[in-house]
Amino acid sequence: MSQIRHALTTRREDDFAAWYQEVISAADMAEESGVRGCMVIKPWGFGIWERMQRLLDDRIKAAGVENAYFPLFIPLANFEREAAHVEGFAKEMAVVTHHRLIADNKGGLIPDPEAKLEEPLVVRPTSETIIGDAMSRWTQSWRDLPLKLNQWANVVRWEMRTRMFLRTSEFLWQEGHTAHENEADAKAETMRALEMYRAFAEENCAIPVVAGEKPENERFPGAVETWSIEAMMQDGKALQAGTSHYLGTNFAQAANIRYQDREGGQALAHTVSWGVSTRMVGGLIMTHGDDDGLRVPPALAPQQVVILPMLRDKPEDSEIIAWCEDLRAGLAAHHVLGEPLRVLLDTKPGKAAAKRWDWVRKGAPVIIEVGPRDMENGVVSLLRRDALWDEASGKPAFQSPARDEALTRVPAILAEMQTGLLAEARARRDANIVRGITDMDALAAFFGGEAKYPGWVEVQWSKPTGGALDKVVEQLKTHRLTLRNVPLDAAPADGTCVFTGEPAVERVLVARAY
Amino acid sequence: MSQIRHALTTRREDDFAAWYQEVISAADMAEESGVRGCMVIKPWGFGIWERMQRLLDDRIKAAGVENAYFPLFIPLANFEREAAHVEGFAKEMAVVTHHRLIADNKGGLIPDPEAKLEEPLVVRPTSETIIGDAMSRWTQSWRDLPLKLNQWANVVRWEMRTRMFLRTSEFLWQEGHTAHENEADAKAETMRALEMYRAFAEENCAIPVVAGEKPENERFPGAVETWSIEAMMQDGKALQAGTSHYLGTNFAQAANIRYQDREGGQALAHTVSWGVSTRMVGGLIMTHGDDDGLRVPPALAPQQVVILPMLRDKPEDSEIIAWCEDLRAGLAAHHVLGEPLRVLLDTKPGKAAAKRWDWVRKGAPVIIEVGPRDMENGVVSLLRRDALWDEASGKPAFQSPARDEALTRVPAILAEMQTGLLAEARARRDANIVRGITDMDALAAFFGGEAKYPGWVEVQWSKPTGGALDKVVEQLKTHRLTLRNVPLDAAPADGTCVFTGEPAVERVLVARAY
Repeated sequence: MSQIRHALTTRREDDFAAWYQEVISAADMAEESGVRGCMVIKPWGFGIWERMQRLLDDRIKAAGVENAYFPLFIPLANFEREAAHVEGFAKEMAVVTHHRLIADNKGGLIPDPEAKLEEPLVVRPTSETIIGDAMSRWTQSWRDLPLKLNQWANVVRWEMRTRMFLRTSEFLWQEGHTAHENEADAKAETMRALEMYRAFAEENCAIPVVAGEKPENERFPGAVETWSIEAMMQDGKALQAGTSHYLGTNFAQAANIRYQDREGGQALAHTVSWGVSTRMVGGLIMTHGDDDGLRVPPALAPQQVVILPMLRDKPEDSEIIAWCEDLRAGLAAHHVLGEPLRVLLDTKPGKAAAKRWDWVRKGAPVIIEVGPRDMENGVVSLLRRDALWDEASGKPAFQSPARDEALTRVPAILAEMQTGLLAEARARRDANIVRGITDMDALAAFFGGEAKYPGWVEVQWSKPTGGALDKVVEQLKTHRLTLRNVPLDAAPADGTCVFTGEPAVERVLVARAY
Repeated sequence: MSQIRHALTTRREDDFAAWYQEVISAADMAEESGVRGCMVIKPWGFGIWERMQRLLDDRIKAAGVENAYFPLFIPLANFEREAAHVEGFAKEMAVVTHHRLIADNKGGLIPDPEAKLEEPLVVRPTSETIIGDAMSRWTQSWRDLPLKLNQWANVVRWEMRTRMFLRTSEFLWQEGHTAHENEADAKAETMRALEMYRAFAEENCAIPVVAGEKPENERFPGAVETWSIEAMMQDGKALQAGTSHYLGTNFAQAANIRYQDREGGQALAHTVSWGVSTRMVGGLIMTHGDDDGLRVPPALAPQQVVILPMLRDKPEDSEIIAWCEDLRAGLAAHHVLGEPLRVLLDTKPGKAAAKRWDWVRKGAPVIIEVGPRDMENGVVSLLRRDALWDEASGKPAFQSPARDEALTRVPAILAEMQTGLLAEARARRDANIVRGITDMDALAAFFGGEAKYPGWVEVQWSKPTGGALDKVVEQLKTHRLTLRNVPLDAAPADGTCVFTGEPAVERVLVARAY
C-alpha cells in the first residue's frame, strides 16, 4: 500500500470524468465562462495551446501551406449549395439576424427590429464554403494549383452537451484547405496532412495515435474520404485528435472552383481539408495527466522549468533571488528540443511548498527549489514531474545536484521526459488494444466485462456500406461502441467479418469514444 | 522629367484613395469577401500581420502579460451594466438570435423559429465586459493583483462604410486587459502599454508616431482617459494606430471586480485596456507604399529576400536552381534584426521579369535575380526595394555583387533599410506638422489652401470640456477636421487658445483623419 498522498482529490481509477474536471481546475487551465457552451481558456491552458500552434504552424509552413484569414460570417446561400454539408451542420449553427441593439421599455436591450439583416449570416462552423468562394476566384489556370491555404480561427457549433476542451460551442482550431489539379494530387495532400498530424501528435504532444480511414458513417459531411488520427485516453476511450478529408469535386462543384487545365479545357479542382483543434488539449490531459494533476510534455510546456526560491520576507531574500536569477539565466542559455529552454523564476508571494504543489498540478516538467542552505552549499533541490514520488518513503523524489551539474542535467531530463512520456503512453495504448475477437457476442462481452476502462478492439470486417453499415453502427451503439478507423498499418484481413460473418476485407478499430 | 515607368497605374499624388486600393490588390494582400464589410486577408497581407503579431506578442510577454482566450459571444446583460460603454457600441453590434437553421418551403434555409435563444448574444465588439466577469472571479486578494491578460482575437463592429484594413466589420486585434490595486498602478500600466505601442510602431513597423492623450470627446466609451499613438499617412491624414485606456473603476463597478486590500477591507480594482489591430497593416501601406506598390520594412517582411532564378524550361534549369538553393541556404544562415534571415527561392512557373515586378509590388525588401551568365561569373543581380530606380537611366538600379559579397551585403542592406524607412517617414512627418497658427480662420485657411495633402497643425488650446468642447468639435467638423491627441512631448503652452481665445493650457494636434 503506497503511502503517497496525491495532489488531487479524485483518482483516475475512481471517476475518470470527475478527475478530468479536477485537473482542468487544479492546473488552472480553463473554466466555464457563464456564456452557454463557451469556456474561458486561462493562461496556463492557453499557453499550452500556443505551443501546439507554434509547433504545428511550423510544420504547416514547412509543407508550403500559406496562412490567410477568411470571414467569420458565412451567407446562408453558401450552405445551400452543398446538400450533405448543410445537412451535417444546419442543426448546430449560431445565426446572426440583427446588426444593432436598442433599449426596450424595461431598461434592457433588444435586437433592433429596424436593423434586421436581409439575409441572416451564420457564424462559421467550418470554412469549406467561404474558402471555396475565394478559391474559385484565385484558380484560373493549372499554374495556380496546388493552392494550399490554412487558417487559425475560432469556429462555432451549437453543441447541446459540452465538456471543456473536448466539446464546446466555440472552439479554436486550424483548418487547412487545399485545391489540386486531380484526384491523385489531392489524395496525396490528404495523406500528407494525416502524416503531419501523426508526427505532431507523437513527436510534439507525446500522444501516440493510430492513423487510418474513417468508415463511411463517420465521414465529414460532404467528404469522399475522411482520415483520422485516434488516440487512446487513460480510460480506454478513443479521442479523434485530427482529421484530413478528401472532398473530391463536391465542394469545387458547389463553389465553382474551375481552372483551365494543361490541355486548355475547363476542369473542376479536387479539394482537401484538414483540421486540429483545442480538443488536443483535452487529449493531452487524458493522456499524460496523473493523480497529481497534469504532466506537460516539455515540447508543449509554456515553462519547462520553474525555479522557486524559498523567501521569508526578509532582507536576505534579495540574495537568494539574485542567485536564482543567475541560475535562470544559465538554464535559459541552453537549448532543448531545438529551442531555447523556457524557464521561469517564480517570485510571486506565497509559501514555497504551496507554490511547489501548484506547479506540480500544472505539470511543469521540472521544479527547482532553492533554500538558503542550498545556496550556501551550491546545490539545488530538483523535482521531475514524471518521477515525482519516492515510492519507498512516499515523499517527493528530490534530487540534489550541484548548481553547475543542474545546468547540464536539466536539458537532458527534459529531452528524456519528452520521449519517456510518449513511450509510456504508447506502451499503455499497445497493451490495451485487443485482437482476435471474432464474433459480436465476444465483442459485447469484452466491453461489458469486468474491466472498468476497457481499451480498443481491432476486429476484421467485410466493410459493409449503406444500410448494412447502418445496422452494424446501430448494433454497436447499443453497447455504446463506435467504429474508429481502419488503421493504415493494420495486418491484412485473413478471417471473417465479426459483424456479418462474410469474408473480411480489412481490420477496423472498435471503441468507446469522446 | 523622370523616365521611370512605375509599376502601379495610380500615383499617390493623383488619387491617394485609389492608389491605396491598387496597392492592396497589386501586392496581393487582401480582397473583398462578398460578405458585407468583411475582407479576405490573403497570404502576403496575413504574413505581414503574423509578423506584427509575433513582434508585438514578444513585447507583451516580456511585460509579464499572459495570453488567454475569452468567449466570442457576450450576453446582453453584460452590456446593460455599463451605460457609456453600451451607448458607444450598441449601434453597431452583430446579434445572434438563433442556434439552428431549417429548410424553408422554397428550398432555402431560414433560422429555425423553434431554436430562438432565450437571450440574444452579441458578437464581441471588444471584451471589457466579458473579461471583467472573469476578473471578478479571479481577483480575491491584493496578492492576485496586478492581473495582466491579453487576447488575440477577432471582433465585430457593424460599420456602415468600410475600407480594407482600416475599417471592416470584422477585424483582428489584440486586446490587453489589466486590473490593479490603485489608480497610480493602473495609470502606470496605461502608459507602459502606450510606450510599448510607440516602440512597436517605430522600431518594428518603421512608422513614426505621436503618443498623447485623446481629448474627452474621443475617449473610449466608458474610459476615464484614452491615450493613442497617431501616425501621419502620406496624404497628411492621421491614423490612430493604437490606444491605451485608463478605465478607472467604471468597469470594475459594473463587473464587480473587488478584492481584499492590504488593510483587510474590500476595494474596487482599477482597470486598463489597450489594443492594436489589423488597421496597422493599412497604416503600413500608407506610410511606406510608393508608386511601385508596397515597401515592407524588413522586420515585418514575411520574406526579406526573394531569389528569382531565370528558368527556361530546359535541363540546365536544375543547375541554376541548385546554385540558387546554395545561395538561399547561405543567406538563411545569417541573422538580421535579431532573427534568422527569411529568404525565399521562388521557382514557380512564370517569366523572371514578370515575377520581379510581382515582388516589387509586394514590397519584398531585396530581390536577387540569377541568370546563367550571373552564375558563370559568380555574381548576382540585386535590387533594393527602397532604392529601386536609377533616376538617370530610368531603369531598375541593379547591383552586381559577387556571390560571397552578397552574403554579407544583404544583411547590412536589410538592417539599413529598417532604419532608413523610419527616418524617411519621420522626416516627412516632421516636415508636415505646422506650428504657430493662432486663430481658427488661419487654421481653416491652412486646410482649405492649395496643398492637396496638408499635414497636421499643432495648436495651443484651453482644453475646453463638455458643451464648450462640443462646439469646438462641431466647428472643426465643418472643415472635416478632428482633434487627434495632446502630444506627450509637446512644448508647454505660452499663448492663447486657437478656439476660445482664452489662455492656453496645452497643445493639441488637429488633422484630417482615417
